[in-house]
Amino acid sequence: MVDVERSMQVIKRGCDELLVDSELIARLKSGRPLRIKAGFDPTAPDLHLGHTVLINKLRHFQDLGHHIMFLIGDFTGLIGDPTGKNVTRPPLSREQILENARTYNEQVFKILDPEKTEIFFNSSWFDDLGAAGMIRLAAQHTVARMLERDDFAKRYSGGLPIAIHEFLYPLCQGYDSVAMRADVELGGTDQKFNLLVGRELQKHYGQAPQCVLTMPLLEGLDGVHKMSKSMGNYIGINEAPREIFGKIMSISDELMWRYFDLLSFRESAEVESLKSEVLAGRNPREVKVTLALELVARFHTTQAAEYALKEFEARFRQGVLPDDMPEMMLYGQGTILTLVQVLKQIGLTASTSEALRMVESGAVRANGEKVSDKSRVVMPGETIVLQVGKRKFAKVTVA
Amino acid sequence: MVDVERSMQVIKRGCDELLVDSELIARLKSGRPLRIKAGFDPTAPDLHLGHTVLINKLRHFQDLGHHIMFLIGDFTGLIGDPTGKNVTRPPLSREQILENARTYNEQVFKILDPEKTEIFFNSSWFDDLGAAGMIRLAAQHTVARMLERDDFAKRYSGGLPIAIHEFLYPLCQGYDSVAMRADVELGGTDQKFNLLVGRELQKHYGQAPQCVLTMPLLEGLDGVHKMSKSMGNYIGINEAPREIFGKIMSISDELMWRYFDLLSFRESAEVESLKSEVLAGRNPREVKVTLALELVARFHTTQAAEYALKEFEARFRQGVLPDDMPEMMLYGQGTILTLVQVLKQIGLTASTSEALRMVESGAVRANGEKVSDKSRVVMPGETIVLQVGKRKFAKVTVA
Repeated sequence: MVDVERSMQVIKRGCDELLVDSELIARLKSGRPLRIKAGFDPTAPDLHLGHTVLINKLRHFQDLGHHIMFLIGDFTGLIGDPTGKNVTRPPLSREQILENARTYNEQVFKILDPEKTEIFFNSSWFDDLGAAGMIRLAAQHTVARMLERDDFAKRYSGGLPIAIHEFLYPLCQGYDSVAMRADVELGGTDQKFNLLVGRELQKHYGQAPQCVLTMPLLEGLDGVHKMSKSMGNYIGINEAPREIFGKIMSISDELMWRYFDLLSFRESAEVESLKSEVLAGRNPREVKVTLALELVARFHTTQAAEYALKEFEARFRQGVLPDDMPEMMLYGQGTILTLVQVLKQIGLTASTSEALRMVESGAVRANGEKVSDKSRVVMPGETIVLQVGKRKFAKVTVA
Repeated sequence: MVDVERSMQVIKRGCDELLVDSELIARLKSGRPLRIKAGFDPTAPDLHLGHTVLINKLRHFQDLGHHIMFLIGDFTGLIGDPTGKNVTRPPLSREQILENARTYNEQVFKILDPEKTEIFFNSSWFDDLGAAGMIRLAAQHTVARMLERDDFAKRYSGGLPIAIHEFLYPLCQGYDSVAMRADVELGGTDQKFNLLVGRELQKHYGQAPQCVLTMPLLEGLDGVHKMSKSMGNYIGINEAPREIFGKIMSISDELMWRYFDLLSFRESAEVESLKSEVLAGRNPREVKVTLALELVARFHTTQAAEYALKEFEARFRQGVLPDDMPEMMLYGQGTILTLVQVLKQIGLTASTSEALRMVESGAVRANGEKVSDKSRVVMPGETIVLQVGKRKFAKVTVA
């Protein structure tokens, strides 16, 4: 007997929208493992926690006994940007795609059980579809309905070009659902239109239309912007334990609860009781530690997580230096450098002005002592341990 | 030395628009045989004179020494109407298409020299293009520019659906030009947009863009509407010599000159001198006979044309009956039929009211004598030769 109510609770946790509840309930009641689809770009993946929101949801389905279908969209990757205008999207070779897929595996199987996950490459059906099949597919949708998609509508009314193949991509994505006989497709909120195209196409091909589950975009460390490489507000899942731990400890208490919702695998009830404890006066820092431990353990090991905690606390409480601090030589070319210049040149701060601000705010230590003199110099031949904030260290020798 | 001026005169005769004169002149000057493309539907062809306007223009190019490329668009024929809504466009099999192509050959080679005509099937390149190639092709055009095409613009603004594959067809037609390395493409005036897409695509694929020559749509026998099967105002090129001859003789003098322009292979100068003769008092009927002779000879033989003339004149002048009149039995089921009823039942008139009008206007003969009595009956056992107008005859026996 399937506990449909509990399943629905787990599935809908943290989600943005589910279409359609009644359809999903009916399928869950059938008791058979549902076919759960999520599609991923075949470009070199270097996942951060933002990407894992979707993968975590796949994990929820997996834990509920459903069949996870991890789709690598290699068909469009092989094409690249067909207008040739976007140089950041060159066509990939089959070898590159397989290499990228391998990298994906290494990362996603930190979250998903590889034994219960089926990997798909959509080139396997698009290679057979042919030009005629693409025309038949294009016949299943109208120009007007495609122009209803938010970004197309804006570009069209704004006089910005939309190349015709861009109308084909949502249809391709929809056709993936047909080929994979998906019961549910997951995607970001920005994917809703495309996921609905899948529903339409499945109906046309005589299949029951997939349910559509959209997940919100995760905020980055700043708590405001979407987590992304380019904003620098991310936690990469391949980062060192110490980095992941420290970054989690640096987020606001409010963002911490959001991360609990979207990133933690703790039961909702458990998260609720943590919230109550904090409301009752427990130090939120302790709760943040449990989140940091869970995430480090997921991407590394429990031992690594515990070690990261120990190291973090030592550093935090006693100002002790980490064991594996980078060491470097700096060639002053005969001139005498200020400590501020050194901080900038070895990259501990992004600029000398940032270095000055850091010194002013008391965030810079030299050999463990807080630096207050902005014009302090480092003499040629001197070796000095520099620290900026809680987590940036370097041992530098000026030659 | 190529007489470019004369070539341009022949090429532009009767044409609607040529794009671009200077480009075509430059290519003609090169002296090499140009690659002249025209595309045709692979649906069962039963050509009428309207279709031949384009084929005649190909013949002009052929007579000037150029290479004629007759394209049968079997790729889209194999698909049919991919929305499945248009039951008049079912997918055709490869066998049906080859059979239709054979029928085409029989008809077009009454105009073109088969030795100097290359037949293409576009499935030969689209089968290899693949779904990815179709996406690359679609990337070469924008939605906004496609919506500039007249019929698309009207349908879009009128809220009528445009299926997305309809945007792909002009691109396919353009890609044909790339695959065939066309120097010139011919089409009806309604094809101008699609022919220009070919220019664009050729540029993208590094070819010199084709010149575009549009031909007007031919008016039917009524001189008003476009010649078409459904309007019944057509002359089929497989019709009997007598039919073609008689129909040409039935057109107005004004339409005759239009037909000279678009259908006759006489030199423009010769046509001009015929016009002068008519202006000077020559009976236009004689000139019409020369056109009728030319067209019957083209689709049958000179002998057949001369026989059709003789027969026509005999009928016209002396009321003599044709040799190969249809004979039929009519079963009156015991009742006595009026001649008007007989005319309708054997199909010499479309209705009894038309039969009545024909009798009133003196256009009906029975056994060579004009019928004036609208209530005249035909007795069971009687055999009677009936004639309506100049060209409809039947010998009928009422049982």
